[in-house]
Amino acid sequence: MSKNLTTIVSSKTKTVEINRDMPTVIIGERINPTGRKKVSAALAEGNFDIVRQDAIAQVAAGADMLDVNAGVPGADEPSLLTKVLQAVMEVTDVPLSIDSNDTNALAAGLTVYEGKALVNSVNGEERSLKAVLPPVKEHGAAVIGLCMDDDGIPETSEGRLAVAAKIIEQAGKLGIPPEDIIIDPLTLTMGADTKAGLITLKTIELVIEEFGVNITMGASNISFGLPDRKYINAASIAMAIHAGVTCPITNPLVTEVRSAILAADLTMGKDDNAMRWIKAYRQRQAE
Amino acid sequence: MSKNLTTIVSSKTKTVEINRDMPTVIIGERINPTGRKKVSAALAEGNFDIVRQDAIAQVAAGADMLDVNAGVPGADEPSLLTKVLQAVMEVTDVPLSIDSNDTNALAAGLTVYEGKALVNSVNGEERSLKAVLPPVKEHGAAVIGLCMDDDGIPETSEGRLAVAAKIIEQAGKLGIPPEDIIIDPLTLTMGADTKAGLITLKTIELVIEEFGVNITMGASNISFGLPDRKYINAASIAMAIHAGVTCPITNPLVTEVRSAILAADLTMGKDDNAMRWIKAYRQRQAE
Repeated sequence: MSKNLTTIVSSKTKTVEINRDMPTVIIGERINPTGRKKVSAALAEGNFDIVRQDAIAQVAAGADMLDVNAGVPGADEPSLLTKVLQAVMEVTDVPLSIDSNDTNALAAGLTVYEGKALVNSVNGEERSLKAVLPPVKEHGAAVIGLCMDDDGIPETSEGRLAVAAKIIEQAGKLGIPPEDIIIDPLTLTMGADTKAGLITLKTIELVIEEFGVNITMGASNISFGLPDRKYINAASIAMAIHAGVTCPITNPLVTEVRSAILAADLTMGKDDNAMRWIKAYRQRQAE
Repeated sequence: MSKNLTTIVSSKTKTVEINRDMPTVIIGERINPTGRKKVSAALAEGNFDIVRQDAIAQVAAGADMLDVNAGVPGADEPSLLTKVLQAVMEVTDVPLSIDSNDTNALAAGLTVYEGKALVNSVNGEERSLKAVLPPVKEHGAAVIGLCMDDDGIPETSEGRLAVAAKIIEQAGKLGIPPEDIIIDPLTLTMGADTKAGLITLKTIELVIEEFGVNITMGASNISFGLPDRKYINAASIAMAIHAGVTCPITNPLVTEVRSAILAADLTMGKDDNAMRWIKAYRQRQAE
C-alpha cells in the first residue's frame, strides 16, 4: 500500500515538498513554445519577455513550480534552454522543471540551475534511461518518469505500471531513490479514445499502490480535440487528485482548472479551515 | 469487491437503470420548498406552477429523475406531497424520488405514484426502519438509505458503513433486495469541517467494496457556507463519481455542475465517442 513518499525540489531560496497528504503542487505549463508561434518566434530571436511575463503571471495565479521548455525547432536547444532557465530564475523564486526531449539540453539545464531541479523527463526507452539518469544522479535532481518505452505507450494500465517499475528500478541501480522519481502515467486525448481517461486514472492507482511515489500528469492534453475543454480539464484533474496525482503540470491561469485543484484539495481534507480556498476566492474577487 | 448492482426505477412510461458501468443518473433537486420561500408560499396555496416549471426545466437540463419534496411547515404533508407528485407526473415522464421526513407522506406518495418509485429516505433509526421499509416492500419501490441512526451521523466512514449494513440487512429481512437500496453516505458541509468531504468519499468506497450497491448524495450541501460554491460542487461531484456515486441529487441547471458530471462520465470511459459531451455542448451553444 501507499507509502506516500516525499519529493523535495528547490530553487536557490525556496523549497517545495510534494506529498500526497499535502496540498497539490501546481506546475505551471505555459513556458513552452509548442503550439505558441509568438513564443517560438521570440525565443528564436533571444527575446525572453514573454517567458518572463508567463513566469510571473503563473506564479501570481498559484503555480508552485514552473515547467520550462525551450523546444524551438531548429534552435540550439541546450544553449537556448539554459538562457530561458536563467531568464525565469531572474524573475521568480519557485523551483523549476527542466523540460526537453533533448537529453543534452537537460544536462545543460542542470549545470546552470541553482537548487534541486525536477528533470522532465526520462522514459522507459533504453536510450533515454542511459542518457538522462546519470546527469540526474550527478546533480542530485528529481526526475519525471514517463510510462512509455521502446514499444511506445502501453495501452493498458498494467503495461504502464511495468514501465514505471522499470524506470524506478533502473534509477535505483544508479542510487536515485524512489522519492526523487515522479511518475507521469501519460494521458492521451479522449477526443481520440474515450477510454483514455480511465486508463490514466487506473495507472495512477496501480503505481501508487505499488510504489507510493508522487504522480504528475500533463493535465490539459486529455481534452484535446473536444469542445469546452476547461470543464473537462477541471473535472478530470479533480478526479486525478482523488486518484493520487500530487503535482499536475497545468495552466493555473484558467480559473476553472485552478479552482478545481483547490476545490479537490479542500474535498480531500487538505485545506484546513478552507483558508486556501477563501484566499483564492478573495484574489479572484480583487482581479 | 464491487458487484455493481443495478437499481431499476420507472415512471408509467419510462425506465431508468442505475449501475456503476453506465452514465451517471442525475436526480434533479429543485422541487423542494426548503430555503425557497416563493415555492413554499405557492405550495401552501395549492399553486403548483413553479413545481411544473422546475420539473420541465430540470429535465430539459439533463435530469434523468426528479426528487419531489413538499415539506412546507404546517402543511398536511401526505396530502400536499401526493398533489405535487401528480402535478409533476402531468408534465414529465421521468421516474421520481418521493422525498419526505414524514413517513406517512412517503406512504401516501407511494399510493398515487405510477411506476416503480425511489423513496427518499429511510435511515438506521429503529423508528424509521419500521415505518418506511414495509410500504417500500409493499409497493415494490427502491429506497435511499441514509447513513445515520439513533446516535446521529457517525463521524467516521466505518461508522457510516455500519449504518448502511444495518439498513441493507433489515431491508433484506423484509425481502427488499440490495439492488433496491441506494445508500447516501451523507455529506456535511466543509464550511464547518474541512474533513467532511474526505469522510464522504471514504464512506462511498467502503460501502461499494462491501455491498456493490448504488450510491447517491445530496451533492450541493458539501459547500454550504463557502464562497464560489459552483466550483466546489463541480470538483467534489467529479471526485464522488470517481469514488463510485451513481445517482447524485443535484441541480442540473448549474452549468458547472452538469458539465462536471458529464466530464466525469467521459473521463470514466462512460461516454462512447464523447457523444453525450458533444450533444450537451451543442445544447449549451443553442441556449
